[in-house]
Amino acid sequence: MACNFKFEIEAEDPACGARVGKVTTPHGAIETPVFMPVGTQGSVKALSQEDLCDVNAQIILGNAYHLYLRPGTETLEAAGGLHRFMGWDRPILTDSGGFQVFSLGHLNKVTPDGVTFQSHIDGSRHVLTPERAVDIQISIGSDIMMCFDECTAYPATREAATESLRMTADWAARCKARWLEREVNDQALFGIVQGSTYKDLRQESAQRTVEIGFPGYAIGGVSVGESKEEMVAAVEWTAPLLPREKPRYLMGVGPPEDILEAVERGVDMFDCVLPTRNARNGSLITSQGRVNIKNAVYARDFGPLDPGCGCVVCRRYSRAYLSHLYRSGEISALRLNTLHNVSFMLHFAATVRQAIRAGRFLEFKREFLHAYTAK
Amino acid sequence: MACNFKFEIEAEDPACGARVGKVTTPHGAIETPVFMPVGTQGSVKALSQEDLCDVNAQIILGNAYHLYLRPGTETLEAAGGLHRFMGWDRPILTDSGGFQVFSLGHLNKVTPDGVTFQSHIDGSRHVLTPERAVDIQISIGSDIMMCFDECTAYPATREAATESLRMTADWAARCKARWLEREVNDQALFGIVQGSTYKDLRQESAQRTVEIGFPGYAIGGVSVGESKEEMVAAVEWTAPLLPREKPRYLMGVGPPEDILEAVERGVDMFDCVLPTRNARNGSLITSQGRVNIKNAVYARDFGPLDPGCGCVVCRRYSRAYLSHLYRSGEISALRLNTLHNVSFMLHFAATVRQAIRAGRFLEFKREFLHAYTAK
Repeated sequence: MACNFKFEIEAEDPACGARVGKVTTPHGAIETPVFMPVGTQGSVKALSQEDLCDVNAQIILGNAYHLYLRPGTETLEAAGGLHRFMGWDRPILTDSGGFQVFSLGHLNKVTPDGVTFQSHIDGSRHVLTPERAVDIQISIGSDIMMCFDECTAYPATREAATESLRMTADWAARCKARWLEREVNDQALFGIVQGSTYKDLRQESAQRTVEIGFPGYAIGGVSVGESKEEMVAAVEWTAPLLPREKPRYLMGVGPPEDILEAVERGVDMFDCVLPTRNARNGSLITSQGRVNIKNAVYARDFGPLDPGCGCVVCRRYSRAYLSHLYRSGEISALRLNTLHNVSFMLHFAATVRQAIRAGRFLEFKREFLHAYTAK
Repeated sequence: MACNFKFEIEAEDPACGARVGKVTTPHGAIETPVFMPVGTQGSVKALSQEDLCDVNAQIILGNAYHLYLRPGTETLEAAGGLHRFMGWDRPILTDSGGFQVFSLGHLNKVTPDGVTFQSHIDGSRHVLTPERAVDIQISIGSDIMMCFDECTAYPATREAATESLRMTADWAARCKARWLEREVNDQALFGIVQGSTYKDLRQESAQRTVEIGFPGYAIGGVSVGESKEEMVAAVEWTAPLLPREKPRYLMGVGPPEDILEAVERGVDMFDCVLPTRNARNGSLITSQGRVNIKNAVYARDFGPLDPGCGCVVCRRYSRAYLSHLYRSGEISALRLNTLHNVSFMLHFAATVRQAIRAGRFLEFKREFLHAYTAK
């Protein structure tokens, strides 16, 4: 596993599993716990790369499935990789495309070898195998690649979950072999733990994935409909089985309250489309909870969106103005809302790191949730 | 006309009518010739006020018709005016709402007293008179207000054009009376010359408007379907009749080539929705002419949109990336395209001013058009 990728733990909270770490990649370092905005098609929806720098995004996600279909790997290779294509020189993590193949593509066939599917854009037919998923991510040039997994549907029977995790483990071994064969030292590969809501299956999956061995580990299949309790349980069962000295990534999570639960249990990395998707629907995150900017009460509320937020939106614009933009159908509403929500999540992660460094994470968690859920 | 508004001519090109001027308003100074981005509903579509500052917008437009309907004058007054409502502390010019009443509203009745119309948003019934149009603009708090005029349709018979310009002149006198009565020293009022494509009617309109007397004068009814030759003719007939020491504003114009013709004939101020509207349709302005970013040839063109442009978009993103964003339906495509087009127009106006100061406007015009129309 000779890759230019490093993880160091810088601080651990004595009262729980929370920790501050530093992930080093060829495109720079990432302080964890980190929230990673999702840039599905090579763009975090409604934001520019300048915006992302301005709000201190340390790393963003790209989706291999989307990028493979459009602009395509040939264009990305011609551009010199996704970083250069999109004008972003900080780290990028790509998912393997597995989740999208199952959720967006018109699925034709799943076999132990891989998946045949049709593009949701033009209906064209494609085959994705573990090897191909690694190759695509190598064309993309992401700093962190993910193994091609089958994201187990929710709910799943024990039989289905078992079969799914074993296929995911077999695919993980093939992904690792391809990754070693391609000798891409500038790109790390993370394994993914599945196992649905079954403790022993989560444990089996964790064990098999760790046996294969990766520079980092993800906990998957926890943002597909399960309850908050089931998500917490999956983390509790899994995290202790993952090597302490490797970063842990909880895929697709989530709202601040869920991130706090996972950080407490030793998770380092998070991504979620909700802050951006909700923003485009007028649902904004503030330190006092959710604000639905479409609500008529905000039409003459000339105060800032979140008095506790120092982002560019809260410094300049009022709730009344944001409400006006939204109701008037202005494109700027989508961008300003997104800018605030992403800024909020990134600042939230920064305060989580501060609290851990100060050895007061649990106190911070209580205070945050008190204000956040007060309304 | 005791208002905190001043216009000074700083340079005149010896070879033609082009001039550089400085308009002083309570929200700062504007160097002319100036291009004013259009912020219809209190937002230049797809841009934020930070963006507008970043691209050096000196002044933006608001539309009284839109702002009157939404958010409404009560909200604007409660906010302390449009500047504070939208977080923009540079100058604002508002049109009177006349053009939109005729083009967007469901027109019920036009009488010498004013216009009855129904809102295009909710069908509600409203009456707009010259006095009411001034009152609305006073609630908005724009630095430059426009007289309520009837924008003569194109083409117009001589009879219709005559009737229209005379009503516009009567309304201008009533607007001025209301403006004096309200004693708003921080808001200037401009008169508007109509007269369609008839030389003597343009002259009659100019003469009547100048007799009433305003801090500035606009030439109206020239971006409603007339040819470029007719636009140039209207400017040629009108500009010499407007006082040299007052700013001249050509409403709704336009593309760079039209601005050059008008500047040459002594026009100082311009606005146009095309740079923003075209941007949202993928039509981009460059120093080498138009680029339709939807065109397949750009999908692997990794060069900057306009090698001659120093804007944030051209510095960071390639044609291939902009093309990808547009074809992928990303919101960022709308903003980045708009940011470039507005930036281009503002930089274009700045180079026009430099050329005039250097006494080489006509040479600049030739050079610009040579590159712009070369393709």
